[in-house]
This record gives sequence, structure tokens and C-alpha cells, in this order.
Amino acid sequence: MADLARDLYEEMARFPIISPHGHVDAELLANNENWSDAVELLIRPDHYITRMLYSQGVPYESLQKPPLEVWKLFCANWKLYRGTPSSLWLREILDSLFDIDDLSELKPELSFSKIKERLASPEYRPLELFKRFNIEVLATTDATNDDLISHKKISNMGLSGRVIPTFRPDDITDPARSDFRVSLTKLGATSFKELLDKLRERRAHFKSHGATATDHGIKSPQTLKYSESEKEQLFKDVLAGNRYEEFRAVMLYEHALMSAEDGLVMQLHPGSYRNYDDEIFNTYGADKGFDIPTVTTYTEELRPLLNAVGKNENFRMVLFTLDESAYSRELAPIAGAYPSVRLGPPWWFHDSLNGMRRWRDATIETAGYYNTVGFIDDTRAFCSIPARHKIARSFDAKYLAEQVEAKIISKKDAFELAPQL
Amino acid sequence: MADLARDLYEEMARFPIISPHGHVDAELLANNENWSDAVELLIRPDHYITRMLYSQGVPYESLQKPPLEVWKLFCANWKLYRGTPSSLWLREILDSLFDIDDLSELKPELSFSKIKERLASPEYRPLELFKRFNIEVLATTDATNDDLISHKKISNMGLSGRVIPTFRPDDITDPARSDFRVSLTKLGATSFKELLDKLRERRAHFKSHGATATDHGIKSPQTLKYSESEKEQLFKDVLAGNRYEEFRAVMLYEHALMSAEDGLVMQLHPGSYRNYDDEIFNTYGADKGFDIPTVTTYTEELRPLLNAVGKNENFRMVLFTLDESAYSRELAPIAGAYPSVRLGPPWWFHDSLNGMRRWRDATIETAGYYNTVGFIDDTRAFCSIPARHKIARSFDAKYLAEQVEAKIISKKDAFELAPQL
Amino acid sequence: MADLARDLYEEMARFPIISPHGHVDAELLANNENWSDAVELLIRPDHYITRMLYSQGVPYESLQKPPLEVWKLFCANWKLYRGTPSSLWLREILDSLFDIDDLSELKPELSFSKIKERLASPEYRPLELFKRFNIEVLATTDATNDDLISHKKISNMGLSGRVIPTFRPDDITDPARSDFRVSLTKLGATSFKELLDKLRERRAHFKSHGATATDHGIKSPQTLKYSESEKEQLFKDVLAGNRYEEFRAVMLYEHALMSAEDGLVMQLHPGSYRNYDDEIFNTYGADKGFDIPTVTTYTEELRPLLNAVGKNENFRMVLFTLDESAYSRELAPIAGAYPSVRLGPPWWFHDSLNGMRRWRDATIETAGYYNTVGFIDDTRAFCSIPARHKIARSFDAKYLAEQVEAKIISKKDAFELAPQL
Repeated sequence: MADLARDLYEEMARFPIISPHGHVDAELLANNENWSDAVELLIRPDHYITRMLYSQGVPYESLQKPPLEVWKLFCANWKLYRGTPSSLWLREILDSLFDIDDLSELKPELSFSKIKERLASPEYRPLELFKRFNIEVLATTDATNDDLISHKKISNMGLSGRVIPTFRPDDITDPARSDFRVSLTKLGATSFKELLDKLRERRAHFKSHGATATDHGIKSPQTLKYSESEKEQLFKDVLAGNRYEEFRAVMLYEHALMSAEDGLVMQLHPGSYRNYDDEIFNTYGADKGFDIPTVTTYTEELRPLLNAVGKNENFRMVLFTLDESAYSRELAPIAGAYPSVRLGPPWWFHDSLNGMRRWRDATIETAGYYNTVGFIDDTRAFCSIPARHKIARSFDAKYLAEQVEAKIISKKDAFELAPQL
Repeated sequence: MADLARDLYEEMARFPIISPHGHVDAELLANNENWSDAVELLIRPDHYITRMLYSQGVPYESLQKPPLEVWKLFCANWKLYRGTPSSLWLREILDSLFDIDDLSELKPELSFSKIKERLASPEYRPLELFKRFNIEVLATTDATNDDLISHKKISNMGLSGRVIPTFRPDDITDPARSDFRVSLTKLGATSFKELLDKLRERRAHFKSHGATATDHGIKSPQTLKYSESEKEQLFKDVLAGNRYEEFRAVMLYEHALMSAEDGLVMQLHPGSYRNYDDEIFNTYGADKGFDIPTVTTYTEELRPLLNAVGKNENFRMVLFTLDESAYSRELAPIAGAYPSVRLGPPWWFHDSLNGMRRWRDATIETAGYYNTVGFIDDTRAFCSIPARHKIARSFDAKYLAEQVEAKIISKKDAFELAPQL
Repeated sequence: MADLARDLYEEMARFPIISPHGHVDAELLANNENWSDAVELLIRPDHYITRMLYSQGVPYESLQKPPLEVWKLFCANWKLYRGTPSSLWLREILDSLFDIDDLSELKPELSFSKIKERLASPEYRPLELFKRFNIEVLATTDATNDDLISHKKISNMGLSGRVIPTFRPDDITDPARSDFRVSLTKLGATSFKELLDKLRERRAHFKSHGATATDHGIKSPQTLKYSESEKEQLFKDVLAGNRYEEFRAVMLYEHALMSAEDGLVMQLHPGSYRNYDDEIFNTYGADKGFDIPTVTTYTEELRPLLNAVGKNENFRMVLFTLDESAYSRELAPIAGAYPSVRLGPPWWFHDSLNGMRRWRDATIETAGYYNTVGFIDDTRAFCSIPARHKIARSFDAKYLAEQVEAKIISKKDAFELAPQL
């Protein structure tokens, strides 16, 4: 079985990386400047790393110390990551990019300088690594009013692969966000009808810059179908500070209709209570590890949307969840029925070895392999992209080999499935 | 361990099939006519098969084409079933009944004609297969007002095993169903008291035709205990179009009381949002794969019922779920306390290898083996009955062998448990 | 791998038992009287045992028969426990304390007399067993107004280990409890402010008797932050029979603030519907196996508490659950962010081999090993303490060995983690 898994992995490894959803900043590539050190590259942009330190009493202030100090602190706490995917990813990065086999065997000063030296070389600039990582497509995530200048710049840099934007209109969807009114003003919409017209323009703008998808980071996947006059009244009420929840649900529904028009794939990432800790948010801002999942259900919530466009040939939706109990209960049955729906791979906390196993175990039997989409790294940490893809591919190769061993699929099936996962 | 599993399987395989809950039509056996072809036998009656095709863009219209065309379409999409239980069941059926080892190796025309030829022979008629499958008891599922004529006819055909009806009063339980008023009129009840009297008559009618159980396909397992006058008022309000949810909960409670009277085992199959897609339902009708599970909880919902008859010696209830998170949280603790409650095996989407493992893993430690009931096929596809039982028995044999290996049970225990599962 | 697991187990077995949460009665040790027989020792105090008998039709009345009769009844039903942790624990106890290898091989009269004989000897008294079990710390659970006289007595008995109380103010937290008003009167509080003052005194009293923690057995982990005047009004309304749910949530919040003051670790055991069956409760009292878990969510519920003291250096909270779907969804992300939060091990129904696996599999990847706390036996059955710890340690040793095998952690990591789990 180990042999078969290895052969399957090799089959998968021949393919370039396609990263259809992530949070790498396009500016990083457009500017193409060398990283200064290990902390700038590996620690600060990775909230998986920093929140674990915080959870064991390392205050965020101490991450503002000089880089070598921060690196020492991190190395002293390296044991905290035992058993976590961060440990697997970092070990892979350190080994493949910096020839560091075991971080705990090396003095922090030594590993720090070893990494610093490499990072200073031209081959370790973002664009050079982009090529080295064999990335074919990298999708970024961008707000409603983004001008996409970095994307335009990158498209003229003669890159081997493509860097495409993703339309994420959360700032216009959730009236409770602090940037809602500013974004709305910038968009220039004074009625619901105008709002939709402006959003259609923005979607077209993104599409003309290569976008193939939208992304929606909402708390609940609730959707609502309202009449024209109801929507106009709702718009007014929202501006007066009321009915926010309905507005989110109506907007999600409307974006589905627009997706059925313009063909942008709709990605749903629901269920996170963002900025859960007021003090953390007020002091350090968003994405500091204090986003906590909540119970997320889909059946009742998505019914208006699915009844409207779920069978539409031009509509395509990818569903994600932070609530794993929904995999077998709701998500696989929905994807196993509606032609528009595909299941996104395990997301965020569940992008891990056990998470991948639970996801496949809970969905494949009902939805089949062909109603799921391949691995998505969803990362802010650029260098973790190939590490994450490698670990996911290894897992899938092992999983397929186990299925062959258990006589659930044939060897031929496995080799046909391998490149498609 | 493989040896032990095989020995345990052989021990189990000696026993005839008991199918206490399913959806095979009694008429099929009463008429005992040959199936015309593979599509009539294997594709059209199996919504596990058709909804998967639909989910990948094969419209239900195309299943109305000539049988060979449909069979070709199915064969071209055979890969969609990789990793699903449908694939395991169909492979078993094709192999054991039609000597087709690998569907993908054969031209569709060839497999189609091979199956057609066999189906034309007298040995492949329903009653002959019933005998060949070694079925001891087959329970069908029948609506409140069913006359059970087919059952009467079958009982006079000298069959080796028994075909018994199951009382399923969903049409009288759920006022939102389109057939509620027609069924009620047919029953001839004009007050709640009359309704109960008539239901008692129908239950007795079913019992006299061999029924041993009732079945309840409700959205929520909510139960409510109301006084006589409250129930009469509720009945009036329901006829006026109100308070449907309460009515369902009251009816479930009343059926439990009647079960404690007449001894019919009460089976609960809650948690499906039936006919989820309006267009699919209006165009193609029910049972087309568009029934989507919802969160289902039991503790609060069943409390009135369990407090009333949960410890009654004449009452027996079997609980099922589509929400696997309830296994260890609610169902096993309830079955591990109330003498009337047994856990039904994994149902519908969860009747699969992983589903069986999750079920046993989550329930046995709390409820023990003796508070669960054996495998139930729950199928509309007659020929899948032995295939489903075979795969379930193989799984159980393997599971018991693993428990022996891990020293959780003894070899002697395993051989005692094997025939009882 | 089996070798490594054995070595890791031996490493763990060298350490004494620390039992930071349990339900052994301090009087048992203070009185130090011999148990009379197997039924008094093993059957009657163990609701895992009695509820399983009940669930299979053995009425609680029959447990009041003469001990030998009860023991015979139990032995005749020994098969019911196959696959349950009770079976593993009892086999371990019977083997290690009474040299009974296989209960089913022995006549009940014989095993009964064998156990009776041993129990009569001085070495089998509670205090002697306490020493033999190598217990370093045993925490009991005690109500708000407990005088802790038994604890005082024990502390003067020259025991090798410590027996410490745990403050469990459920009787003052939940106005729906039958002992709420008596406890409140005994406490002598006539306003909310006075209530808090008195509770602070009780907490200090417990602390002076060695307590290191409080424990809260509530139905929901809901917390609420109210102003002084709101709390006084709430107190009045509760005395008038209203707003019980809010009161529970406010009390939980206030205890968190007090924990941040006095440093007592706050343990949360939510999600059980206690005394679910009225008849059982009225006839036999509490803790008879009729406590049924309900859906339990934490994110929204704990937000007021965590925003108030979650980052406080003097505050420490341990979270438990009966709803396993919360492990990966809410509990691991919370523990992986807040420095005050640790995850308690699998509790009650989930204190089992599968339960331990599900817990580790669902939490370690997000929270890491260091945000979890070690095994807790939570038992009323004194003699099961070493058996439970042994089985948990064996499991952990095997789990770590598997992680080494899968190259997730190193061998060195495993040996460092082993004694800490």
C-alpha cells in the first residue's frame, strides 16, 4: 500500500499548483522585494503561529521586539506546535527552502542567520519563488472597491503563471462592519437598485482582470428572496441602522442571481464569529486568531438560493464549513443532488491531516469524488503554499491507496482520480 | 484478524435475511412479473443512482429515453459512483445475479443484453428471487388507508418467507402534506377523539395482516402531551389551516400511547426536509433525491413521550437519525437508559461503510450491543436487499474481529454477538 | 510501534495518580470502613452499571434484594457490557484487586465470596487502597454550604496524598433546583450584593481547606454581564419565581470574575438535562442514569465571560462537553486562542477508548497538546480510579506511538509529552 501511495503521489506531483482561493497580497508579488528575515516571512503573517503563542501566554507586544528576539521566543515555544499542521508546514518549508532539517537541533541564532542569508538572494524574491513553486494560478481575495492595480502590474511582468483577483463584497454585505458606510459611499449607491447596478459593474471589472470567482465570508449562509419594493424598504431601514441580518441574507441571494448571470463561481465561507474579542480587535485589528466558529446549518438557510438558481446551468457554488457536523448531514446531500454545488475542501482549522480524513470520510460516500473540488490552501503565508499542497497531495495519495486496499475503488480508478483531486 | 472476520461472516451468512423496514412495493411481489431490462430493475427505482447523475448535469428527462440509451448514459457515468455504497451494491448485484465482474470492462450494449436475457427467465421473477435471496421476513411501508390487498394476495401464494405491512400514518400526521385532507376524509374522522378511534382501527387492521411495527417519517421528533379539550381545539384549528407543528407533535405522542396499547413497535425516521426543491417536486414528484437532512435533536423533543411510556413494558421504539452528531450525544444515552428504546442502524445517507463505522463507534460504548437493532436495508430497489445485507454483515464481522484484536471483547463474545447483529 | 507504546506507557506509569475532579465522597475516606461486599463496592455506587441493567429491563427494585441475589443478576447480565468502558474498568478491577481473570468463567457465588473475603481484610479499607493506588491528589465535589468536616478529619489522618474539596455552587446558581431556597437561606443572602459577598466567603473557606478549583454543572454555558442595579432587580425577580435562565447566566459570569480574583480554576461541565425522567427522579432520586445530554454551544454563550477575563493572567478555565461536535468547532479554537482556557478530557459518556480518540483527533491539531489538561476520572466508584487512569494512560501511550509512526511528532517529543498528558 505504501508503494501505491507513493506512485499516486508522484502522479499528482507532476501537476503545477492551482490555488483558487487564498489571502496572499497581490502587492507582495507586484513589488517583488526580498523578505528581511524569518520573522517577517514565517511568524508575523501567520495567525496560526501567533495565536498559539498567545494562547500560551506570549503577548502580541512581544512580537514587536527585534526579529532575532522574536525568533528566539518562537524557537523556545516550538514544542507548542507538536501535533498541529503548522508544525508540518513549517518543517516542510524549513527543509525545502532553507535546508533546516530539525529546528530544535539548531541554535535560534544559527537558524535565524541561515534563513536571513538565503532570503537576501535574488532567487528568494516572491516572483522567483512563485516560479520555483510551479504555481499556475494564484487567486487573491479583494474587496469590492479594489482598483486591482497590483494585478494589472503583475499581468505585465511576464510571469509563468497567473495571479487573479477574487471579488469579496463582504464590506457591502454586512452593515455591521465598520467599513460598510465608507464602502457604500465609495460605490455610490443610494438605492437598492443602484446598489445592484454598481455591484454588477464591480463584478465585471473584476472579471475583466481575470477573476473567475466571488467569495463570501458571512456568519450565516441564510438567504432571502424579497420583492423589489421590499428590497428598497430594507435598504432604507439598513441605512437607518436596522434589519442588518435580513440585509445580509438578501445580499447573498442577490449575488447568487448575479453569479448565474456572469458565471463567476460563488464561494461560501460561513460560520466564523469574526473579531470575537473586543480588546484584541481594538488593539491589534482583525485576523489575530480570535475568530471563533459557531454552529452552521445550511439546509433551511440555502433553500431560497438553491430553489432559485441551484439547477441553473450557468451557476456554480462551492460550499465550505467550520462546522464539521454539516459534512455528512447537509453538505454532501446537497452537493449530491444540485448540479451547481460542489464541496470545498476542509477549511481553516480543519485543513489538517485529521480534518482531511474526516472530510473525505464524511462526504465521498454521499457526494462522490466528482462533487468535490481539489485542495485549496487559503493562506496568507506565501511560502506555505507548496508545503500545504504537498501535504494535501500526500494525504490524498494515501487515502486513495487505502481505498484500493479495501477494494472500494480499483487501482485504475485511483490513478484516474489522483490528478483530479 | 482477516481469518476471524471471515469465520464470523460465515457464521452470520448462515442466517436468512430479515428486512424489518423497507420500501419495496408489495404489488411487485403480488404480480410477480419479469423486469424488462437493467434500467427498470436497477436505475429508475433507485434514487441514490438517479440523483447522482442529476448532480453531475444529467437531467431527469434523459432517463425517459429508450432503456438502452439510459443504460449507456449510466455506464458512461459509472465513475461518478466511485467510493459510494451504490457502487458496492451494484457491483455485488451485477456479479452475483448477472456474472458481470467489472462493468467498465464491458460494452454497455453487451451488459445490457446480458442482463436482459437473464431477466426474461422465470428464475428472475420477484418471487423466485425472494426465495433465492433467502428472505425470511420482508416488511413493506404502507399508508394509513391502504387496503393491504397485495399483502393478502401474497400470503396465499405459498411463499417461503413472510411479507408484512408497516403502518405509516404520515399522511394523517402532517397537515402540510397535499394528501392530508383526502386521507382524513377517507378515514372519516370529524373530531380528535374520532381520529384516534379510526387510527386504532387502522392499526388493528394492519396488525391482523401481520404488521409488527409503525413507521413515522417526520421532520422533527417533537412530542407534546395535551389534554382532551386541548386536542379537540387543536383539531379544529388544524382544519382551519393553523398550528400544524403542534399537531404533528401531538400525533407522535398519541401514536406512542397507542403502541403501548397494541404493541406495534414504533419506528422514528426524523430529520429530512422532504421535497426540498419545489420545481423538482412539482415536475417529477417525491423521492427524487431532493430530500435534504436538517439538524435533529431528540432530548427535549422526546421527553413528553419518554416520560409517558419510555418505561412501559409493552412499548418499544426504534430511533433513527440523519444527524450523526446525535449518536453519541443523545441517542446512545437515551437507549442506554430507557428499556423501551433501541437504536436503529445507520440510515439512508449513512448506510455505508464509513457510516456503519461511525455509528458503532459512537453508540456501542454507551448503549452496548444489546440496545441496538440489526441491519435494516430501507431500500426501494428489491435486488439490492441481499447485496446490502451482505455488505453490512461483512462490515460487522470485520468490526467484531477488530474488537477481539483490541481485546475489547473476547472471541467467544464475538461468536455470540455475530448472529444477533 | 507496540514496543514504543509500551515504553511510553511505562514512562507514564511511574507517576502517581492526580485526580483533579471526581465524585468520591470524602466521608468514605474519613470513616475508613470496610466495604461489605461486591454489590456495595461495584454495583450500587456506579450508575454506568445500574442504568445499563435498567435499559435492558432490570428494575431498580431488584437491586434492593440481598447482595448475592443482586450479584447473580449482574453476572447473568454481564454480556450487556460488551464493548463498553464499564467492562474494561471492571475487568481491570476484578483482575488487579481480586485475582478474577474472567467473570463469565466463575460461578457468581464463587466470585461473590472471593471478593467478600478480600474486602474484609484491613488492606482493603479505603485509606489502605488510597495508598495502594498511589494517589497523590484526590479532589472531591462539594456543595456551597458544605462544612468540609470530613476533609478536615482526613487532613489529620497522615495520608500519603491529599484529599481536597472542590467548590460546586450549583445549588445557588440554579433557582429551579429544589434545594435552591434552602441553600440560599443557609447562606444568608438577601440581596445580590450580599449573595456575592457570601459566595466569596465560601470560596475562601474552600480554599483554606485546600480547594484549587470550582465546578459548575450547568445546562448551558450561557454567561451574561449585568450592571449592579440590573443584578439586584434580577435577584428580586428570581425570588418571585421568574427569570431563572438569566440568573444562571449571570451567576456563571460572576463566578468567573471571582475566579480571576481568588485564582480558583473554573471547571465547566455543561449540557446535561439532569433528572430527565420525572418518575425515576421522584422514586429513586438523582444520578440514576437518567441525565441526557443536549446540544451544547459555547461561542456566543461564553463571549461575555471571555471578553471580561479570558485574557486575565489570574484566571484559568477548563471546558468540558457532552456534545462532541463542539470539540473541533468551538472548543479547540477557543483554547487555541485564549491563554486562560484549557480543554478538559473526554467526559462521562465519552470517557472511553473511542471517546478519547475522537477528542484527541478533533482538538490537538488546533489547540496543540499544551492547551489540554490530563486525564480526569470523574468517578463515584472509588476502586475504578486506578483502572480508569491505567486505561487512559495506555490509550495515550498508543496514541503518541501512532503519531511518531506517522511522523507527526518525533520519538523525543513523545517521551517529553508522555508524563505531561
